[in-house]
Amino acid sequence: MAEKPLILVTNDDGIHAPGIRALVEVAMKFGDVCVVAPDKPQSGMGHAITINSTLRVEQLHIYSGAENWSCSGTPVDCVKMAINKLLPRKPDLCVSGINHGANHSINIIYSGTMSAAMEGAIEGIPSVGFSLLDYSVEADFSAAKIYAGKVIDWVLKNKLDKGVCLNVNVPRLPMSEIKGIKTCRQSAGTWNEELDERTDPSGRKYYWLTGRFENFEPQSTDTDVWALDNGYVSVVPSQIDLTAHQMIQKLNSING
Amino acid sequence: MAEKPLILVTNDDGIHAPGIRALVEVAMKFGDVCVVAPDKPQSGMGHAITINSTLRVEQLHIYSGAENWSCSGTPVDCVKMAINKLLPRKPDLCVSGINHGANHSINIIYSGTMSAAMEGAIEGIPSVGFSLLDYSVEADFSAAKIYAGKVIDWVLKNKLDKGVCLNVNVPRLPMSEIKGIKTCRQSAGTWNEELDERTDPSGRKYYWLTGRFENFEPQSTDTDVWALDNGYVSVVPSQIDLTAHQMIQKLNSING
Repeated sequence: MAEKPLILVTNDDGIHAPGIRALVEVAMKFGDVCVVAPDKPQSGMGHAITINSTLRVEQLHIYSGAENWSCSGTPVDCVKMAINKLLPRKPDLCVSGINHGANHSINIIYSGTMSAAMEGAIEGIPSVGFSLLDYSVEADFSAAKIYAGKVIDWVLKNKLDKGVCLNVNVPRLPMSEIKGIKTCRQSAGTWNEELDERTDPSGRKYYWLTGRFENFEPQSTDTDVWALDNGYVSVVPSQIDLTAHQMIQKLNSING
Repeated sequence: MAEKPLILVTNDDGIHAPGIRALVEVAMKFGDVCVVAPDKPQSGMGHAITINSTLRVEQLHIYSGAENWSCSGTPVDCVKMAINKLLPRKPDLCVSGINHGANHSINIIYSGTMSAAMEGAIEGIPSVGFSLLDYSVEADFSAAKIYAGKVIDWVLKNKLDKGVCLNVNVPRLPMSEIKGIKTCRQSAGTWNEELDERTDPSGRKYYWLTGRFENFEPQSTDTDVWALDNGYVSVVPSQIDLTAHQMIQKLNSING
């Protein structure tokens, strides 16, 4: 009898977030699950790793039927810790999420959820990050769970290219209103930031980083932002080659 | 008379690091300089941003002839703070570094130095990250300063494509032994991690993340790793499109 797939589950909202519970429940249908997730919220941590301080892990019993570890580090630290220390073998799949909030477009670079999935891909593990476009702690994950199952099933049966992970975003809609999955590319966009200035009780200024997302390509129908705005689950294959290949030739004059 | 270029200088080793002093000295030859850098080392922070806590800034007087601000956040926070709050206008150039240590290949994704430069590019500012392949606090930045000047001169005179920044790495060699600049692409590679397990005075385990870099493409002569190994300064144009365009077609079967 073939061994069951070993599935690593992580996230950036922390091991106690409702979204990771939803993803653990889905993953258990497909294999043996090991949860290694941050011991506290780590949203916006991007691809941060812990090199100037130390890491701790703790075995917990939150999700029965799965191994549970919390880690004091970032989402990427969790993946490194799982693969290099905690798991009995290299996992067959790494899933991250389900994130409370969107990770489309440029958000992939700020997202701890997606950075964990990218780290899995860097380590040669088929990896998927899932996000639901609902920040609420009481978000309804039922449609996201169904689509997570569909994507996990596809990834276990098919192959992802070496170094490629999937960025899956689910619109905040009931299942009946979701039109299906759309494979797409990352939209170009940015955050128009505001730094919300306040004064503490001692009279010193401090700031909250806040802002509004701007899609640079509202007319393009092949992007993740378009897909989500139009009721689709977006799936963007993603990889770590940041080279702007189209500029290499022009730059050659830098020596001249 | 034309206004002098406004140059934002940041880094990830913190505002007191020798590498940023070297970069401030170079930048001052080209324009008015404003330093906005982390108040403590932020290596390995990747594209992390501060959203679960607040930010503080403090005006300092470390580098005379320049505006100096320290920021309690990450390198990316520093760029956002500079552009949205501290600078009188959008800067003409954003430079980050000079980092103490390499940021070639996959390291671009973990690097606070390069994430600051990428954030500059996202904001539409010509941006460059500089790194010297020498971790020592007593590193000799003299050759790196000369090459930083060459690159800054080129970028101010020419244009970078929208959303593209440069990742510049300088080998640890005296000026006389550096063969020049090589424009190249990011090499594929990874870190083979070890988690160095130790026991604290109370008997609890903790871990240091450590490892050894592996270049997946030792035979390719068009990569940054090859350039540095062969005595060149590497310049890689870099951008935030992580889409694995080559996989989009294959993934369409996910709905089927």
